Amino acid sequence: MLLEASPASPVKLRCIYADDKQGNMEIKTLEFRNNKVRIIDQTKLPHKLEYIDIDNVKDMWQAIKELKVRGAPALGAAAALGVYLGISRSKAKTFGEFARELNKITGYLASSRPTARNLFWGIERACSVAVKNNRKPVAEIKKLILKEALAIIEEDRRACRNIGRFGAKLIGRDETILTVCNAGILATIDYGTALGVIYRAKAEGKRPKVFSCETRPLLQGARLTTWELMKKGVDVTLISDNMAAHLMKEGKIDKVIAGADRIAANGDSANKIGTLGLAVISAYHKIPFYIAAPCSTIDQGIHSGKEITIEERKAQEITGLFTDDIRILKGIEVYNPAFDVTPHELITAIITDKGVVRSPYKENIKKLCA
Amino acid sequence: MLLEASPASPVKLRCIYADDKQGNMEIKTLEFRNNKVRIIDQTKLPHKLEYIDIDNVKDMWQAIKELKVRGAPALGAAAALGVYLGISRSKAKTFGEFARELNKITGYLASSRPTARNLFWGIERACSVAVKNNRKPVAEIKKLILKEALAIIEEDRRACRNIGRFGAKLIGRDETILTVCNAGILATIDYGTALGVIYRAKAEGKRPKVFSCETRPLLQGARLTTWELMKKGVDVTLISDNMAAHLMKEGKIDKVIAGADRIAANGDSANKIGTLGLAVISAYHKIPFYIAAPCSTIDQGIHSGKEITIEERKAQEITGLFTDDIRILKGIEVYNPAFDVTPHELITAIITDKGVVRSPYKENIKKLCA
Repeated sequence: MLLEASPASPVKLRCIYADDKQGNMEIKTLEFRNNKVRIIDQTKLPHKLEYIDIDNVKDMWQAIKELKVRGAPALGAAAALGVYLGISRSKAKTFGEFARELNKITGYLASSRPTARNLFWGIERACSVAVKNNRKPVAEIKKLILKEALAIIEEDRRACRNIGRFGAKLIGRDETILTVCNAGILATIDYGTALGVIYRAKAEGKRPKVFSCETRPLLQGARLTTWELMKKGVDVTLISDNMAAHLMKEGKIDKVIAGADRIAANGDSANKIGTLGLAVISAYHKIPFYIAAPCSTIDQGIHSGKEITIEERKAQEITGLFTDDIRILKGIEVYNPAFDVTPHELITAIITDKGVVRSPYKENIKKLCA
Repeated sequence: MLLEASPASPVKLRCIYADDKQGNMEIKTLEFRNNKVRIIDQTKLPHKLEYIDIDNVKDMWQAIKELKVRGAPALGAAAALGVYLGISRSKAKTFGEFARELNKITGYLASSRPTARNLFWGIERACSVAVKNNRKPVAEIKKLILKEALAIIEEDRRACRNIGRFGAKLIGRDETILTVCNAGILATIDYGTALGVIYRAKAEGKRPKVFSCETRPLLQGARLTTWELMKKGVDVTLISDNMAAHLMKEGKIDKVIAGADRIAANGDSANKIGTLGLAVISAYHKIPFYIAAPCSTIDQGIHSGKEITIEERKAQEITGLFTDDIRILKGIEVYNPAFDVTPHELITAIITDKGVVRSPYKENIKKLCA
């Protein structure tokens, strides 16, 4: 049975308390080693820095579903590697058999979360390698799928550095940047998208300051963004999500940079819930609002944000305040959409790995991706 | 020593679990009985409905500071009664002596929280009774201060009913209202301001639905608003604060109604942090945005919102997720403003106990309060 988890998996590897090291600690969001995918269990941060090894597709599905690994770019690599883990034990003799198993695995992985473009893109890349090489032996195709997944890892590493390089040009000295959720090292293989811009600006000596929205309900801003920025020596201040407008009104924010989970052909950008609100209040206060994401997050197959499926997650994420044992209300009705879509007209520019795109987005995105 | 707390005070009275009763339970936010002020300890809701008796000014200061009693209108009554509790044991023989003690007590009470207009207004009303009756015996003045405080209670009861009556005219059948923080029974003596409008609309058979923003960091929306609306049989759904823009974009919100802590002469309105953001996103989505507050919240002494002092509260309210034992991050920088100011141009109308005021606010507020 391909989709069964190994009994004691995933294996917990080591547990470093988050405040063990300060300064410029190396953070390895996702690696492939010894035929396993090693990830940081991000649900444990910032209390514990715990790595887990994943060696089967069911555990990968679970890790994605439960946000142990998260962030659109990281999900691209996780999904492609998930396909490999799923197919690596296949006993298929013919391509036909192999393709049926592959179909089952990719359908299963794709059912983990609906919004992030990179998840599907990573799966598609793994699949198209199989299709392109359908005359080769199954053992060979498996190796090529792994090679493709590892290529995604290396491409993401380079893409984030490029996003940082292009984005840092938009940042002046001593500017204060507001960000939401986590679009950093922990959302990518390395360096981050929105936070990559900040790391690069810091490396260029521009001394950026950051305000991090805590990002309810799961507090990725409070738990992950502040944690990694502190580890990297960036000046960061935590706020509740509802404080952003007041900060802007007080003149405390120079720019807003958010990541993206899926960008439509017209530039409409889905990202963590709350991003739309930030874009609207940025426009009102005449503060530039940027999206930072690799081209792999752009979905040319959809014309506008209306076609993006928004994931709804369970009520307990809101009522439980992230810890399972504190239920603030019993039996209350809750609505918990995990993403929203910011219309392109509210976006000052999209910072990609191939350059900075501005309005008119439809034409410029087409040119960029060509 | 006037300002000393009694050793075992405040006295905890009874503890009813919040889900003991459903339907249309009576909620008594604040009462004066047996020479004590009986309040619901709102920090315990929704887990416990616990009443406490306060019989001295220091406990009242503490209760206000720690948000055991909160909401601008309730603070008006609490402050005036606090003055009475403080002065009731005075041994002053002359008005001069009495006035010195009164000064000390009012200065002390006024130092509890800086933003809500009604707190200062309640204190001022108690003081002006003393000044007006300075030729009367001290014992008589004490009684008159109590009478004034009790008058505030009765006036607030009527004011909220009037706000409800005026406001409900703005609400259509089957409309969905978004609200923030708690501007309900728990923020007033009875009925509420923003929620008073909803209770009245419900009483008129209009079947209002409510979305309640959880209101980080102290979750008054999640803990108090949902609790009292459920007790009163109103259809309420809880969301995180950062979900409001997405709801509006989806067409789920017909109107927004918020309370106010202080309203300047030009209509600029201070309210719980996050209100400004809601007003901006409401304007963007062309959704009417209303402030509901009694005239006692209007501070004619200030020209605009720029003159309103914004309370900053401790970091732990954000990092501790309301429960003291869950610190999500050690040593992190936090900014925690408790209020923001919504400029009058974003306010569709202000629903007061004397009627609904619209732009131009300066002229119309002046007429209303004359």
